[in-house]
Amino acid sequence: LKLITLLTDFGLEDGYPAIMKGVIWGIAPDAQVADISHSVSPQNIFQGALTLKRAFPYFPSGTVHVAVVDPGVGTSRRAIAARLGSQFFVGPDNGLITLILERTRHQNDPIEIVHLNRPEYWLPQVSRGFHGRDVFAPSAAHLVAGVALDRLGTPIDDPLLLSIPAPKTVPTGLQGQVIHVDHFGNLATNIDAAALAAASLTGQFVSQVRIGGHVIPGMVQAFGDRTPGDLIALIDSDGYLAVSVVNGSAAGRTGAQLGDPVEVSIER
Amino acid sequence: LKLITLLTDFGLEDGYPAIMKGVIWGIAPDAQVADISHSVSPQNIFQGALTLKRAFPYFPSGTVHVAVVDPGVGTSRRAIAARLGSQFFVGPDNGLITLILERTRHQNDPIEIVHLNRPEYWLPQVSRGFHGRDVFAPSAAHLVAGVALDRLGTPIDDPLLLSIPAPKTVPTGLQGQVIHVDHFGNLATNIDAAALAAASLTGQFVSQVRIGGHVIPGMVQAFGDRTPGDLIALIDSDGYLAVSVVNGSAAGRTGAQLGDPVEVSIER
Amino acid sequence: LKLITLLTDFGLEDGYPAIMKGVIWGIAPDAQVADISHSVSPQNIFQGALTLKRAFPYFPSGTVHVAVVDPGVGTSRRAIAARLGSQFFVGPDNGLITLILERTRHQNDPIEIVHLNRPEYWLPQVSRGFHGRDVFAPSAAHLVAGVALDRLGTPIDDPLLLSIPAPKTVPTGLQGQVIHVDHFGNLATNIDAAALAAASLTGQFVSQVRIGGHVIPGMVQAFGDRTPGDLIALIDSDGYLAVSVVNGSAAGRTGAQLGDPVEVSIER
Repeated sequence: LKLITLLTDFGLEDGYPAIMKGVIWGIAPDAQVADISHSVSPQNIFQGALTLKRAFPYFPSGTVHVAVVDPGVGTSRRAIAARLGSQFFVGPDNGLITLILERTRHQNDPIEIVHLNRPEYWLPQVSRGFHGRDVFAPSAAHLVAGVALDRLGTPIDDPLLLSIPAPKTVPTGLQGQVIHVDHFGNLATNIDAAALAAASLTGQFVSQVRIGGHVIPGMVQAFGDRTPGDLIALIDSDGYLAVSVVNGSAAGRTGAQLGDPVEVSIER
Repeated sequence: LKLITLLTDFGLEDGYPAIMKGVIWGIAPDAQVADISHSVSPQNIFQGALTLKRAFPYFPSGTVHVAVVDPGVGTSRRAIAARLGSQFFVGPDNGLITLILERTRHQNDPIEIVHLNRPEYWLPQVSRGFHGRDVFAPSAAHLVAGVALDRLGTPIDDPLLLSIPAPKTVPTGLQGQVIHVDHFGNLATNIDAAALAAASLTGQFVSQVRIGGHVIPGMVQAFGDRTPGDLIALIDSDGYLAVSVVNGSAAGRTGAQLGDPVEVSIER
Repeated sequence: LKLITLLTDFGLEDGYPAIMKGVIWGIAPDAQVADISHSVSPQNIFQGALTLKRAFPYFPSGTVHVAVVDPGVGTSRRAIAARLGSQFFVGPDNGLITLILERTRHQNDPIEIVHLNRPEYWLPQVSRGFHGRDVFAPSAAHLVAGVALDRLGTPIDDPLLLSIPAPKTVPTGLQGQVIHVDHFGNLATNIDAAALAAASLTGQFVSQVRIGGHVIPGMVQAFGDRTPGDLIALIDSDGYLAVSVVNGSAAGRTGAQLGDPVEVSIER
């Protein structure tokens, strides 16, 4: 199986992702190509990083992920490809792989990153506006077709990293923020299960979650533990504290948006 | 050909359908995976059932359809897999297969349904919020890879069925309702060609179709029989009475919505 | 590699594109199928033609492109299939291939067009409303499976062509119009690099681009040449003069829509 995924902010209407697939199949005819998402908000690198981090663990070893949210296209920003653990990542050097790199380091898995600077692995003509087509898709296709990572460019060890907002410890517990609003209106925060566990190490427990003017008493294990329409807090399937409405939209209910504060009170 | 389709209400922006594909390819690397739709309205089981019923007849024997519109995820609702005729269906036991089951029974084709209760065919960790990833995708992948249906779980014969609204006979003819508004604004009703034929058995014929304040005189065979902009009634490509505007939107013209009444008068 | 692409105005929500894939795999099980776009504005043939022309050059020889934007379905409009250069195109005879045909003629590449009039290569039942499913998908599948083009129908040499608006020469330079607004709000015009070159042959150069009340001094090579938020004019990756905002939306900034005039002044 030669598997490539695509994650971009290109949208689906103009055919840009399909163009990347055409380029890939011209180089690696037997590649299977899956779309992770093309609906990242334009130029929103952090949202792209989060979506990529959510999806990649479920793909087989050897998968090549092409992630192109690229506000710096046509500037001097580098193009990179990376092996992080058993999978590969290709895209602009702007922090899209930050969350995966952190995880890979944490697990002591192998890391190898190269600056894509060998034009023989790109399309013959490279535009200054569409490197997804001209640089990243062909590089990924060569990777999946068996070209070694270190043939595609020069090793680097200083990839650009995003500065990810971390939850803060406050007198009553933790304060985080909404970092993702999904299709169902679920509000994911930057407070993960580990942060909650750390804050609760001495036997404390979560007593309430506050967002906007809403106060949610305690957390539940799953949607099914409450009645449709209830506003709840839980650890979502990505491992983050999330605020949801059972069979409804927490974004609609609370009016909360990206960046809005969420407080978790630890009762003593 | 090992073919799996996906039908969900997950949307395309967050990468959830791609995650299901990653899981599938980890188990069945040579599977081909097609998206039927991920734009079912959140938790709208009936719309999911209708979309699945529209699409499945055009897929080859042996195709495995994964349908996940799952407001009951994390509750005690069962997970099921079914062989209906020559194809397979995997998803929550909430009525998504109702329309296909009816058709299969009507045709006296084979029916076999199991309760998915063998965790060895799921992901090692099962969340309470995302069974599409943890239960349904791996089950479908094992099915397409050759595991027999009855290995995946215990046979059942009481799948949950949706109660589908049927058209009513009224003094002047039939009264049905809008059950689907498609991308073009076509308004499909629950009055199918068979119901019309039954009501017209004694030589009557359709004289007019009423929706909102609009009266459409008679039915046409196809869009091409009228002029662009005309409001028409016809049997659509799914076999249902539909109200359309030639090269336009009947939803926009009439303001009609899901559930709105549609009357067909049979002239005597 | 047996590669088929789909371009339609069907949208993604109702499952129509998936139905076409099911039909294809029933005939050509080993075909790979890619979506170019299903978000063409309903019945907008020109937008479909433009999207197809943008994407096809990046697909391998032998690819079969199915393009269905088909306001005339169910009328007497012909169904056609064409070999243009090294690739194939299947769809209604309404001008969808105009731009590609012009390019193919210009390059003196082979052209072969047939009227699809052999029902043995269609589905057994042909509706009057969904030829994408009943005629075009099966024809494409037979093509990719090895049936010769001239077996599918009778040769024709009079395909219907769109009348494409050309930029006009005005005293101060060229006047064109917005022909595409993409996902990012970039405004592409019908003024291509060749038209600019022709107008500038005697040493003139572009001095400003006017759109709405906005005046853009000169053109840049790429987004990276200006600061985020700047309104710029450049030759886009499709080869057309476009108006953009660096890391923003020119459609949002200018309020410009399809068909709005764009003037390029050539300084003397």
